[in-house]
This record gives sequence, structure tokens and C-alpha cells, in this order.
Amino acid sequence: MLRFAKQEFPMSEMNEIDTPAVLIDIDRVKENVSRFQSHCDQHKINVRPHIKTHKLPKFATLQLELGAVGITCQKIGEAEVMAEAGIGDILISYNILGEAKLRRLVELAKKCRLSVVADNQTVVEGLSKAFSSKSQPLDVLVECDTGAGRCGTQSVDETVELALSINNSPGLTFAGLMTYPPMGRQAEVEHWLRAAIEGLAAAGLSCTTVSCGGTPNMWNAQGVPSATEHRAGTYIYNDNSLIAQGTCTAENCALTVLATIVSRPTETRAVIDAGSKVLTSDQLGLEGFGLIPIAPEAKITGLSEEHGIIDLSACDWRPKVGDRVEIIPNHACVVSNMVDQVNLVSNGLLVSRERVAARGCVT
Amino acid sequence: MLRFAKQEFPMSEMNEIDTPAVLIDIDRVKENVSRFQSHCDQHKINVRPHIKTHKLPKFATLQLELGAVGITCQKIGEAEVMAEAGIGDILISYNILGEAKLRRLVELAKKCRLSVVADNQTVVEGLSKAFSSKSQPLDVLVECDTGAGRCGTQSVDETVELALSINNSPGLTFAGLMTYPPMGRQAEVEHWLRAAIEGLAAAGLSCTTVSCGGTPNMWNAQGVPSATEHRAGTYIYNDNSLIAQGTCTAENCALTVLATIVSRPTETRAVIDAGSKVLTSDQLGLEGFGLIPIAPEAKITGLSEEHGIIDLSACDWRPKVGDRVEIIPNHACVVSNMVDQVNLVSNGLLVSRERVAARGCVT
Repeated sequence: MLRFAKQEFPMSEMNEIDTPAVLIDIDRVKENVSRFQSHCDQHKINVRPHIKTHKLPKFATLQLELGAVGITCQKIGEAEVMAEAGIGDILISYNILGEAKLRRLVELAKKCRLSVVADNQTVVEGLSKAFSSKSQPLDVLVECDTGAGRCGTQSVDETVELALSINNSPGLTFAGLMTYPPMGRQAEVEHWLRAAIEGLAAAGLSCTTVSCGGTPNMWNAQGVPSATEHRAGTYIYNDNSLIAQGTCTAENCALTVLATIVSRPTETRAVIDAGSKVLTSDQLGLEGFGLIPIAPEAKITGLSEEHGIIDLSACDWRPKVGDRVEIIPNHACVVSNMVDQVNLVSNGLLVSRERVAARGCVT
Repeated sequence: MLRFAKQEFPMSEMNEIDTPAVLIDIDRVKENVSRFQSHCDQHKINVRPHIKTHKLPKFATLQLELGAVGITCQKIGEAEVMAEAGIGDILISYNILGEAKLRRLVELAKKCRLSVVADNQTVVEGLSKAFSSKSQPLDVLVECDTGAGRCGTQSVDETVELALSINNSPGLTFAGLMTYPPMGRQAEVEHWLRAAIEGLAAAGLSCTTVSCGGTPNMWNAQGVPSATEHRAGTYIYNDNSLIAQGTCTAENCALTVLATIVSRPTETRAVIDAGSKVLTSDQLGLEGFGLIPIAPEAKITGLSEEHGIIDLSACDWRPKVGDRVEIIPNHACVVSNMVDQVNLVSNGLLVSRERVAARGCVT
């Protein structure tokens, strides 16, 4: 954690940060990472953080230093950035398809301990073709749809069939199960995974890893006892959606958007210079587009790309043009992807600016 | 338009483009730009395109070559990129505040014919302080809220008062009015602007420019006869929201997202590798997250960052894993901001890759 020692950086005043800007409170980052690591240590669950939330090699390294067994990426581009920065164990929790991506995957596997997932035979065939001539087989987990309705095998039979196919494919090793679970339905997820594990055992296959995930349900990660590891992403920063779900409080939120009041057209309307190009349109079931901690009753009612409209009618806060305000976004992960750099802060002071190295890795 | 002549570029097959990817059909771009330019020429309205949609100097240049009088930017960073590329006339339609931005504005004014807007006295004072010692005064338009409920003066009196303040401020010249109007309410907008112009005339001020805007109402730009220019952005690409509003058809849409089917978990569910990190969560009042022209009844029902969920139950389309599909996004402008590069295509062939030079300019 010495990498964040304040003496390493020139201390600067916050008002040198032009707006809109993304601020990351590094003390809260460390608290958030440590707290979840302790929770998982207590329940003997490995932590494999999803780096989509921060996209920063520095924070991935911190997560490993604090006890994570490896990281999760969704895209090869993200994994390339992380491997380049020295991260040694990466799961790409995504069906990898197509010659361009498979070529990159082969190169990536030379740089780190790599594992991927598959939920269909086409993906398995592509992976096998790419890795069959390699000395080191590729670990492949079967992605299971335990109720979230995204990707994943739909039944035990399908899971066993795909696992056997992986196991019989040159260049591949069946390494276990992976699921992105429905939130708050741990018993259901456990039931699904337990049945799959038993089915696999009956077919002679064991699961080295059973990977579950999600931040909203992280404090009950132990509610899926079959899981050997938990992939959480947002937990490092937290956000307004997690406050709403009771997973954290505003005081646990490490990422905020610093904005300036650029217009006060009416008594109850303020306009900020943070629109969807920073806060994004993600609402995650919430009303409005973020929380203003100093005036929680103020409502960010609308965003255009460069403007945020705040309705002040339910609060006493009456900011002036030029005032600055911090906003906790609804969804922290997507905000990281909107900016080329973030500002690391501590105790209200700018510690450093950090390039979001894995931003915009769409492939 | 020779810059798009196909012989200048190596012709490549589309299947060399890895997904997800943003495709721009340059023939449709030229048609869209020409068609609106002709419409405005016919009605003697100047065109000042908003470059937020494409963020490409090459397309800004095309718009000028086809008759635009200048361009509109929302951010200084965007304007810097465009001025650097040789664009000579730029309106920044935004309240500029703060020393950092004002310093950049002064530098920018040396490189192009620059104008900005203000809707409050604090902005006017900052601009005047920055430009009072300069030989060339800065053109400042008053931004009026003609009903859209974003920024802008609220009354004729307020408009006249601010215009007089600009006119009396060292370093500034009052240059007219600017509004981002409510869509489809041209008569109301005209009434508002007409009253303001008369109020200004009574105070001894004339408006060189009256700038109106918006793509949804562009075919009735002449419905605001007081306007001397129209700022449209999305018209260069068009999108699903504009199809829904009847402004264009799917055949006019120049920007599409090329995605790959990565999973087919059930008979009626397909998952693509384009999620909110490319398509964005912008819905603009629509259901779903984009239109699939080859299967318009297929519904993109949900996005996570890297996955799009397609419900096939209302259509016959049954794509295989590995198939590719083009999607017309709900909102084209925000998609441009999500990717570092776009693929310019013509007649189904890749013409060139273009860096989105003004992407991510948040300040």
C-alpha cells in the first residue's frame, strides 16, 4: 500500500481540478477492498475482483496485495492491459469467439495464468483449435445461467455435456463452473450449482473452481457454499445503486463526480456541467441520475450529454453559479469508462491523476 | 468530397472488423449532410452543425465543404481538436466558467473565429475579465430558455439586461441569441425569440445571429423565422430515436453497431457482445436498446456493460453463435463517445478506420 503514500505525490489543491472530473477517495478504496477481503477470508472464499469498475492496474495490484487470488476481466483488451502491468492471474468471464480474439488470447496466455469460460460448443471448438498446438492447455470454466437470464448453460445435462466436451478437446482443461448469479437469490443459485457439481462428479469430472459474483449480494457470498470464489467489481468504489440496496452507505462511496454549477435559470433549477457523458444514463431502477450527498433531497432529474438538470424544490440548498458539488453516480463502473483519467484524492486533497488504462477496451 | 474517394483507401473485407465495432456508412453521411444543407439553403437558414455527434474533424470539414457556416461544440476540448484540424468558425454553445477553461478559451480565440454563449452575469464577468486585454473582442450570444427547461434566460427583460451587460463589458461583443429549443414547438419558440429581438431593438441592440437547433425538428427549421442559423448534430448519422419520431427512416441511418452473437442460451434468447459500453443506456423514451434492421421485431431487452440480451420470441430470426448483426442505436451521438475509433464503410466494404479525435473531451 506504500504506492499510495502521500509523500510520493505532489499535494495539490482540489480547486486545480477542472470539472467535470471523477474523484476517487483512495482511503475509502482501501477500506472497501479490505472489508470485503476480510469477509471472504472469514468464510474461506477466494476473492477475484472484476476490474471493469476501476480499469486501473494500480488498483488491481492493490486488490491482489490485500489478498485477492487473481482478477476478472470481461474483455481481452482489459486483460492485455492488466497482464502488461504484471497481473499474473486473469479470468476472462466471457465467451471468446473469432480468429482475431483467439489470436490475442493465445498471446495473452503466455503472459499470465489465464482462464476463460464457455457456454456453448462453438466457443469450445474455437478455443480448442487455437490452443491444441500449445504446450500449456487453457483452463475453461462452463458458464451457468443460475437465474440471471444472461449467458450460461440452462441445465445440469447441458453443463455436463459441455464440460465433457471441454475435457475431451485438445488444448483445453475443464476447470469448473462460473455464474453471474441473480442478486439476492443465493439459495436458488446454490441449489443449481450443487446439482451441476453432482452431475459432473457422476460423469467423473471435478470442479477446481466454482466462481460466483456480484457486489449487491457480496455480504452473503457465503450463502452459496459451493462457490470457491467470488467476483465482485463495484465493491471497490460503491455507488448510489448499492446505497439504495443497503449494500453500503454514502460514506463508503469512493467514486464521485465533481461538477460545477453552470446555470441557475430559476429559483429551483440548477444546471451542472456533468451530463450523460460523465454520469451516464444508467439508472439501475433508481429515479434520477445520482445522489448529491450535501443535498440528498435535490434531484438530478435529467441529463443531456453535457448538462445535468437539478431540481431544488425539495431542498434548501441554493448553489450559486460557479459553485462545485460532488455527486455519487448511480453506477460507478460505467463512469470509469467515460473518462481518460481519474483524480485520486485523500482527505480532500489531490494525490495524483491516474490514466484509466483499460478504458474503452471494447474488444 | 474527394477525401472519401475509395481509391484512397485499401479496400478490406468487413469480416476483418472485430466486434463490437461502430460502422459509419459514408455514402449515407454525405446524403444526410447534403439533404439538410439543401433544405436550409432553400429557406435561407445558415447551418452550423453540432460536432458532438461525430467528433471527427474529417466530417466537420465535410459539413463545411457542403455549405455549413461553421460548427458548434459544447466543450472547449472538442473545439480545440477542431481548431487544430483547421476548422475556422466555432460556436461553443456553453457557459464557460473558471480560470482553467478561460485560459484555454483565450488561446482558442487566436486559432479560429470563436463565439460563446452566456445565460448569467457570473459567466459574462469571467469572459470579460479573460478578454478585456485582448485586441479582438469575443462574440457572446445570450442563451435563452425558450421552453426546453435546460439553461437560458427566462424572460425578455432578463435577456435584454444580460445583452446590455455583455455589450458594456470590456472585451466582449453582444452577438445575438442562442437557444436549444423544445422539440416540435416552433411557434412557441418563434414567439419567444421575436419578443426578445424586439426588446433588444428597443434597448438599441441588434442580433447578428439568432441560433436555433435540434435534429428532431430540423425539417421545420423554417418554423422559427427569426432564426438565422440552425444547429443540428444527430442529422449526420440519424438513429433509432429519429426513426421513431419520423425524422428519418432506417435507410437514412449512417451509424450502426456491428456485434457478434456470443451466446444462444435458449430458443428465444440471443446474447450479443455489444452492451452499454457501446450502445449506451440511452433510451430517449423508447423501449429497448436499439433496432435490428434485419429483424425489427427482435427486442434488445437489456444491456449490461458487455452483453446485450435479445428476445427473439416475436420474430423468426434465429441467429447462430458467431453470426454478426448490425444494430441502429437509440442515440447515435453517445455511441461515438464510447469508442476510440470508428470504421468508415461504403457499399458493405471497409474504407478506413478513423480515430474519434474529439472523444472523451469532458472539459
